[in-house]
Amino acid sequence: MFITLEGIEGCGKSTQSRMIRDYLQAKGMTVTSTLEPGGSTLGTTLRQILLDPKNSDITGLTELFLYLADRSQHVSSVIRPALERGEVVLCDRFADSTVVYQGYGRGLDPKLLHQLNEVAVDATWPDLTLLLDLDPEIGLKRALTRNIQENKHATEGRFEAESLAFHSRVREGYLTWAALNRERFVVIDATGSVEATFDAIKEAIDAML
Amino acid sequence: MFITLEGIEGCGKSTQSRMIRDYLQAKGMTVTSTLEPGGSTLGTTLRQILLDPKNSDITGLTELFLYLADRSQHVSSVIRPALERGEVVLCDRFADSTVVYQGYGRGLDPKLLHQLNEVAVDATWPDLTLLLDLDPEIGLKRALTRNIQENKHATEGRFEAESLAFHSRVREGYLTWAALNRERFVVIDATGSVEATFDAIKEAIDAML
Repeated sequence: MFITLEGIEGCGKSTQSRMIRDYLQAKGMTVTSTLEPGGSTLGTTLRQILLDPKNSDITGLTELFLYLADRSQHVSSVIRPALERGEVVLCDRFADSTVVYQGYGRGLDPKLLHQLNEVAVDATWPDLTLLLDLDPEIGLKRALTRNIQENKHATEGRFEAESLAFHSRVREGYLTWAALNRERFVVIDATGSVEATFDAIKEAIDAML
Repeated sequence: MFITLEGIEGCGKSTQSRMIRDYLQAKGMTVTSTLEPGGSTLGTTLRQILLDPKNSDITGLTELFLYLADRSQHVSSVIRPALERGEVVLCDRFADSTVVYQGYGRGLDPKLLHQLNEVAVDATWPDLTLLLDLDPEIGLKRALTRNIQENKHATEGRFEAESLAFHSRVREGYLTWAALNRERFVVIDATGSVEATFDAIKEAIDAML
């Protein structure tokens, strides 16, 4: 079983991911918890390149190919082996992030991006994608608070330094893309408390199990 | 004017590239001499990743996306700006290397690779591609001698460590691909001396000028 988490910055993916892992482990399942970019050994290097603000001259297209490289290595070295061992794979961001951020966010063609994803994932698609939906103003405030708590510069992440308009396009893009892929997407309202959001997630997971 | 050099390991691309640069400069042209992988700032990092034998677990697909990332950044930050300044760009390996090494060499679909290249190069195709053609047994011997002279381990490069069968597929792939793209490919016999090879190259360049 392959579950992915998607959503804008500050939507609570990391927290919810840990809670889902605990929930599934309590049911006796073995869970591989991973993330993109950076889920493979190569991915860690690529993640450093991609998230480093001094690489701001990287074009949208180059960024795209780096994400696809990370994804391809991640699928073949981490995700697919875990699925073949019968584990649940829980992944924080996956192929949909590319369609939404590079497509709806940066203006590349979502259809072309989906085709490139098809090459990169080589038929390994999620069974369930949880979209944590949230107003980007609230999301960015949460991301900012988190960065301050973790002693990071407020605009440390490249995506967090983007404009509110960008994040609004990303949010709308996620909702459009989810509507086009209803067979695996469940939209979760992430405006409320961590617990309220997790209750909705549990419902979606239980329905699938 | 955009000229690319292609061919198997040890075919003499680097040497011929320097001679072409001198030849064109002597004619009063400004030449930007560059290479792939590694022609952009980002590319240098990617080249280290790609050519490092300890990254031998990188799959063919991942390698492909890294080359495409390097290419896309190289085109937008080096090649296209130089062409727009009216310079001659001379590039040691370009999009055709991907079709030939990953396609004919490693078994990915050459047609798909060409489509991915079309995304990465964004309409910046060479006016002239010089294929330095050579028996791979001779090429590998030359590459080996060069490595020993430069005090490198004999199998330092990842590609040079590949089997003779692989390099034979690459050579045949180059010839097939050149025949499919006759409008810009010129096949140069690189079996003879450096000077004899350069004479044939000069002829092709003069014909284009």
